[in-house]
Amino acid sequence: MSGWLAIAGLGPGAAELITPEVGQALAQATDMVGYLPYVDRVAARPGLVRHASDNREEIARARQALQLAAEGRRVVVVSSGDPGVFAMAAAVCEALEDGPSAWGEVDVRVLPGITAMLAASARAGAPLGHDFCAINLSDNLKPWTLIERRLRLAVEADFAIALYNPRSKARPEGFARALELLRRVGGEQRLVLFARAVSTPEEQLKVVSLAEAHPGMADMRTVVIIGSSQTRLLSRVAGALLYTPRSVPAGV
Amino acid sequence: MSGWLAIAGLGPGAAELITPEVGQALAQATDMVGYLPYVDRVAARPGLVRHASDNREEIARARQALQLAAEGRRVVVVSSGDPGVFAMAAAVCEALEDGPSAWGEVDVRVLPGITAMLAASARAGAPLGHDFCAINLSDNLKPWTLIERRLRLAVEADFAIALYNPRSKARPEGFARALELLRRVGGEQRLVLFARAVSTPEEQLKVVSLAEAHPGMADMRTVVIIGSSQTRLLSRVAGALLYTPRSVPAGV
Repeated sequence: MSGWLAIAGLGPGAAELITPEVGQALAQATDMVGYLPYVDRVAARPGLVRHASDNREEIARARQALQLAAEGRRVVVVSSGDPGVFAMAAAVCEALEDGPSAWGEVDVRVLPGITAMLAASARAGAPLGHDFCAINLSDNLKPWTLIERRLRLAVEADFAIALYNPRSKARPEGFARALELLRRVGGEQRLVLFARAVSTPEEQLKVVSLAEAHPGMADMRTVVIIGSSQTRLLSRVAGALLYTPRSVPAGV
Repeated sequence: MSGWLAIAGLGPGAAELITPEVGQALAQATDMVGYLPYVDRVAARPGLVRHASDNREEIARARQALQLAAEGRRVVVVSSGDPGVFAMAAAVCEALEDGPSAWGEVDVRVLPGITAMLAASARAGAPLGHDFCAINLSDNLKPWTLIERRLRLAVEADFAIALYNPRSKARPEGFARALELLRRVGGEQRLVLFARAVSTPEEQLKVVSLAEAHPGMADMRTVVIIGSSQTRLLSRVAGALLYTPRSVPAGV
């Protein structure tokens, strides 16, 4: 049987949020490749070799997976959330572009998953119910000045803004600077959702204004959603809902 | 048993892309409410009352669903894709905000799904692998001038841009104007993905440059992704991949 490579999204954490398509690929695989905490989310079984690697080794991991598939193995690269959003799908494409020509014959498929911002949005209500953007706050792979420019333009466009990787040990100050910039250009009243480890036992949701937001509210497992000027919090007996209306009045 | 309301995403079309969480809610429901083509995607069964309505009746549909849940029914509102992205979750929040206070006690949950842009992105490769935005091109609920402003700012930010509802019978000229604007401010060379009915038997994918893109390439079932300045097409024996690298060189 000839090999293949599937880059699969495991969603935010809960098994009920993994698509059947991903479950089938995992059931057929001979090899699973990924960042250790994601590999750990899939149960071991005979016949499935697990290759776990460290963070920040995306290209090495992609090359390993492509090589295994080129040798005839059936390989699943696992990502958290959706593999196409700040995750392994682009890394595999980069590895392919720079890799040996034989890899051009490997059957590569991307299997979508529930990405963190949409899991968080669902849990909170509908803060991404109108136009929005997603920005990776990590400056490992792009200049910080570009991140700041995008944040400014996103506020000017009045998008709701999902921030991935808001905070890491390597860059403790970036998120603080981002919050300051957002307050300066967007005002202090915009609502902010901190959604941590959604759909897992460690899930925590918090909604505050930008005035109240501080960097310590986010960690490596948090996605942050900054509301647009129209985002509001609806108080209810059965639990508050954070949402952005579908309509924008003329003149905004 | 007391009623509840779940607003559930059916994903782009294929059953393998519906999460088990949504499947469980549908199995427990007494009532299903939605736009006719989405209601038709769920098999009929004894004990499940199907309430199908026409397009553009989102608020009436939301009110009907809330009223049924308030009366003790177990109600699933079905959306295509993800209910939080230009779909029913925000509409239900709007109906709640303007509705009777008794609705404040209804248990409301949003169950995420695979949204169209992420299904399309997965099929094509990883065009949303770097920072991106999502814009609803429909001007039913917002002024067209705001759409044009957002498109300009999104190009200035060098986001990849997912366009939902690019084209409808009611607004045949909007998408043509959007493409003209994108060519003017972003140049003719950016790559454009037209992804129609992804994961269904009618799936069609096409990648062209902005110079070659024309409005007739999209219909009501198409999501359009405009690449950033960095998005590229990788030719391969096993099928081309459209992707946006994770890194941006300094100076871009």
